[in-house]
Amino acid sequence: MPLSDLVERVRSGRATICVLGLGRIGLPLGVVLANSGFSVVGVDIDRGRVAKVSEGRAPFKEEGLEAALRKALGSGRFEATADSRGGVARADVVMVTVGTPLAPQLLADYSQLHAALEEVLSEGISMKAIGLRSTLFPGTVDNIVIPYLEGRSGLKAGEDFALAMIPERILEGKAIEELYSLPEIVGGVNDVSNAIFAELFRRINPRKAILHTSPRGAELAKLFTNIYRYVNFALANEFAIWAEMYGEDAHEIIEIANYEYPRGRIPRPGLAGGPCLGKDGLLLDNNTTFSSIVSIAWKLNEAVPQYIVESIRRRVGRLYGRRVAVLGLAFKAGSDDTRLSPSVKLVEILKGHGAEVLVHDPYLADTMALDEVLRDPEIVVVSVNHPGFDRLAERIDESGCGLVYDVWGIFDPADFKRASYMRFGRGK
Amino acid sequence: MPLSDLVERVRSGRATICVLGLGRIGLPLGVVLANSGFSVVGVDIDRGRVAKVSEGRAPFKEEGLEAALRKALGSGRFEATADSRGGVARADVVMVTVGTPLAPQLLADYSQLHAALEEVLSEGISMKAIGLRSTLFPGTVDNIVIPYLEGRSGLKAGEDFALAMIPERILEGKAIEELYSLPEIVGGVNDVSNAIFAELFRRINPRKAILHTSPRGAELAKLFTNIYRYVNFALANEFAIWAEMYGEDAHEIIEIANYEYPRGRIPRPGLAGGPCLGKDGLLLDNNTTFSSIVSIAWKLNEAVPQYIVESIRRRVGRLYGRRVAVLGLAFKAGSDDTRLSPSVKLVEILKGHGAEVLVHDPYLADTMALDEVLRDPEIVVVSVNHPGFDRLAERIDESGCGLVYDVWGIFDPADFKRASYMRFGRGK
Repeated sequence: MPLSDLVERVRSGRATICVLGLGRIGLPLGVVLANSGFSVVGVDIDRGRVAKVSEGRAPFKEEGLEAALRKALGSGRFEATADSRGGVARADVVMVTVGTPLAPQLLADYSQLHAALEEVLSEGISMKAIGLRSTLFPGTVDNIVIPYLEGRSGLKAGEDFALAMIPERILEGKAIEELYSLPEIVGGVNDVSNAIFAELFRRINPRKAILHTSPRGAELAKLFTNIYRYVNFALANEFAIWAEMYGEDAHEIIEIANYEYPRGRIPRPGLAGGPCLGKDGLLLDNNTTFSSIVSIAWKLNEAVPQYIVESIRRRVGRLYGRRVAVLGLAFKAGSDDTRLSPSVKLVEILKGHGAEVLVHDPYLADTMALDEVLRDPEIVVVSVNHPGFDRLAERIDESGCGLVYDVWGIFDPADFKRASYMRFGRGK
Repeated sequence: MPLSDLVERVRSGRATICVLGLGRIGLPLGVVLANSGFSVVGVDIDRGRVAKVSEGRAPFKEEGLEAALRKALGSGRFEATADSRGGVARADVVMVTVGTPLAPQLLADYSQLHAALEEVLSEGISMKAIGLRSTLFPGTVDNIVIPYLEGRSGLKAGEDFALAMIPERILEGKAIEELYSLPEIVGGVNDVSNAIFAELFRRINPRKAILHTSPRGAELAKLFTNIYRYVNFALANEFAIWAEMYGEDAHEIIEIANYEYPRGRIPRPGLAGGPCLGKDGLLLDNNTTFSSIVSIAWKLNEAVPQYIVESIRRRVGRLYGRRVAVLGLAFKAGSDDTRLSPSVKLVEILKGHGAEVLVHDPYLADTMALDEVLRDPEIVVVSVNHPGFDRLAERIDESGCGLVYDVWGIFDPADFKRASYMRFGRGK
């Protein structure tokens, strides 16, 4: 069967898909593909995770994921396994969704990618299609993946196997909804590779926009997308620091500046980081020898936790021995993901000062209960704008704490009758 | 008459307004205020400009301005004069619209502002309202304007005279339209000052959103608005440089990244500068001792003309003695404003290399005709995306030039049969 036959096989939904990695990218993708009519094998090395998924339980918070997973399992079209060779052997299409973290010294860590490519190669790749869903440093497909796959297999990309970069661009927490709605950027090594993945994603939603480019174009498009957001968050944080310097409130000024203004989309200041935005820019910066806006933005966002702790220290004096309640540990609102979370950094800095830090995050089972952390704290830092946190003002005020620090500006200063109130970006 | 009476006088349209400065901010404002029912005296020190305006001719390009000016003159409610004392003497409200350029060494140049305040003071300010429409360094109203006005007059701001910062946020070229539609940020020194200027702008359009803040909040809101745009232009230019580095086309990638993507508003790369965006960030940076995103963005945008000349030089070799046609000199499309224009800088750099530079700009009468600059050029640089320039591909190709450099990506590379084609942000 030539590769062109695979186009038809995918179009008709008869293809079998193997998704490598059942993380925050792979699991929602596998489940949605199964619910779109494909037979899907999801592979993960973590046997505990495989068992959990097989029982219909989501291993992380993602709206609608558990229901979609149960539907997929019930249809008999989705299966989770730790047996990568078995999964790959049956597949017409293999989707690689492994992480591409950043190692120290701005080194892109390709160990997970290499391991995944080994798995892909284990049962032969002739007449298969390989889709890369990870965030990749520009040139990775051309300079690393193609030489690797061709070198090990003796086959030719685009002729003997199809290959494309189709970067994930969902918002964590909205993965299921956005897999149906977002356009897909398909960077195939040739036309047949483009066609296979276009058909694959059109099965999810026939009206999904499919945008074709080169693998390198797709790598850059993903990075540009995330960097654009990350730099704008950093800019908002710079505005916050300026507003404080001039005795004003950045939250109020940004709201006024944006209000009904056609060129106003300045984001709100706050903690910016996490597993994607926090490192994607540096993945691009990797090969850049000048000080880019991205590197300055990274420096600025990474400095915010330290800036906040310093602001508190200047207000209350030494932090040694102080009881500090921190509300929120995830990298963003509504998430249980703590990878590269600025709130984790904030907690570590407070601990470094010798503070007794009590952490509550309603999305993280291994943190303390709210009642417990609010039992006689001296300082309360609300570091994540989790849903419902904005209704805690009275409870925090009644905890008897001397100071509340509101990172996201979710409270009205007037809500605090006893505690003194500080807000990031507010210099009055 | 207490200041509170002035609120009613303005609300009913019976107030007389003096606009100091008949430039790109002051003239449209004066004309629109006159057409909204006020008696308006526009003052400028440039007698030639006053004469021109009095004859109903706009001294610069601004869509709809000339028609609006003629209507205002015809109604008898608008008058232009060089007699500032006479204008100020009659006024209930004085609008200061003078420029606040940046002097060398990041020094905010307040000479025009000081001169304008002298004029405002010349006939007494008791029971008048003074509105500042210029872009001001944060703290200017509090630290410079109020002490100056109170010190010279012996009067008290907010009690004996009203004072507010109401920053202009129009897009040059759309000033008339946007004066009717944009929200106004009113940063008054007290409630009565806020009320007077809210009523003034509501006469232009009763549905105009009026956003109240402090003078300093208004100063910052204006700077945040412009810096947000300028930094995003710089980011697009950084993406352009990266795309070139990786052999891709930033224009294509940005289009793909934005397409139907809810978090995608990346601007297009190109020359970014001009009298507002090019210096407003530095006005804020003035008082900042760290390397801000703004200063990096400024450095990057300011480097683009040199980067383009270097790209051309690497392609064609030495530029000494080469005939280079440059199409476009204004700082942006559709404008005749060349202040701090990156295209002017581009021309100067080319001249510095010893090139023979021929400039055409259809918006600038003192540049050469298109036919003239396209008579046997060796290199054509299209530096501004003026309306209609995108239809010049064939004509440029037939000029016999060896190279066309398309700064804004307005041409299809396939349009050039003879000339070789380069585009900023395209590394292939």
